[in-house]
Amino acid sequence: MAYELYYWPGIQGRGEFVRLALEEAGVPYVDVVRGAETEGAGLPALLRLMDGKAIERPPFAPPFLRARGLLIGQTANILAFLGAHHGLAPAGEADRLWTNQLQLTLCDVVQEAHDTHHPISVSLYYDEQRAEALRRATDFLDNRVPKFLGYFERVLEHNPEGDGHLVGAALTYADLSLFQIVAGLRYAFPRAMARLGKRCKRVTALHDAVAARPRIAAYLASERRVPFCEQGIFRHYDELDDPV
Amino acid sequence: MAYELYYWPGIQGRGEFVRLALEEAGVPYVDVVRGAETEGAGLPALLRLMDGKAIERPPFAPPFLRARGLLIGQTANILAFLGAHHGLAPAGEADRLWTNQLQLTLCDVVQEAHDTHHPISVSLYYDEQRAEALRRATDFLDNRVPKFLGYFERVLEHNPEGDGHLVGAALTYADLSLFQIVAGLRYAFPRAMARLGKRCKRVTALHDAVAARPRIAAYLASERRVPFCEQGIFRHYDELDDPV
Repeated sequence: MAYELYYWPGIQGRGEFVRLALEEAGVPYVDVVRGAETEGAGLPALLRLMDGKAIERPPFAPPFLRARGLLIGQTANILAFLGAHHGLAPAGEADRLWTNQLQLTLCDVVQEAHDTHHPISVSLYYDEQRAEALRRATDFLDNRVPKFLGYFERVLEHNPEGDGHLVGAALTYADLSLFQIVAGLRYAFPRAMARLGKRCKRVTALHDAVAARPRIAAYLASERRVPFCEQGIFRHYDELDDPV
Repeated sequence: MAYELYYWPGIQGRGEFVRLALEEAGVPYVDVVRGAETEGAGLPALLRLMDGKAIERPPFAPPFLRARGLLIGQTANILAFLGAHHGLAPAGEADRLWTNQLQLTLCDVVQEAHDTHHPISVSLYYDEQRAEALRRATDFLDNRVPKFLGYFERVLEHNPEGDGHLVGAALTYADLSLFQIVAGLRYAFPRAMARLGKRCKRVTALHDAVAARPRIAAYLASERRVPFCEQGIFRHYDELDDPV
């Protein structure tokens, strides 16, 4: 049976990290929320699994993946599963832990990118926390993004098997996630990323190499790739970017 | 060789989740930063591993654990390692993923608890982001804590092997982490937790049961347990708690 991905409709969000892994691995999957409610899919199908009293192991939040009889939540956890079963992570314990460690740090970047536009509450609109967002985004671009990108640049530089991948000599889900973060940051903060991208040439090269992989390129050009937008995690509010 | 834990001195912080697992499992470990600089320990030993150009797989931030020739970072990743090797997680894939999924959600709580007093930047003092902290803490206590605690209450309730543990019929590192979060929230927000604790009796009972385990009780009574304080993740600023 095809895997079933459950994620909020209309945005890439955290679901995109799972989509990229499924696409690169060539795993058949259904993006359930994009299906028809009349056929048991759509948003109600997602909400049933989150709210359903009958679910023994309910996820706290999307994304979650139904696969091989399991219902798996938390982005890094889903990716660990996909990595192990679909050739997107090395098999040995040391490499597996290292890949997971990198992914968890990438998830931290995602959370901080989200909080640039929602520093106070996910229950409030952006306009209700705009003053705080301006302060937080400034700190994010001045301190956090350089630190995170510098870290991944160093990881690539120190990889004894070459700087083309974060772990070993082959693609892992961590590479896919780093691609997505660079793409998202470029969308949200084009001026800041034009400035910061020059300092991390290996990270930029990895982004470009992932985008050029045949399955990823085909996916990005397809309608399955939801466009970036201002309801997602990476949002372009011009006032949050570097000053012109 | 004894495991080596590296974490910032003087606070429980994220290192505490690792300490609790090591203590419960009875694993010999050295809390390196609390050792003497003259003997190669202390804070310089931690900074060497983070900044060292010679480290092939550097951690982004503490805590990290040196164990069996590995240098393992990210709290949930360290706990997955300890769970697998020291009887703090089930062996089967489904249970292992579920334990990790719960731990990642617990890590989200920790991050949000931290951001109540640092909603703008980790580089600024509390007083420099106090106005924003007041707003964020209100949302945290009104919306997020009830949602998180309600979720874990439901997980306990739905556990077919009983509501004494989050996963199966035996203790896992996720139980230890839930204990620490309840303890931390009670320290930081005593009035709010007096209000909210009544709604999650299973979570409260689990906290009490963990605290009463012989090794945990001995640890909590020892000098190895750093007291809660206002430099850690869970901080008591009276103005952030429920109004009197």
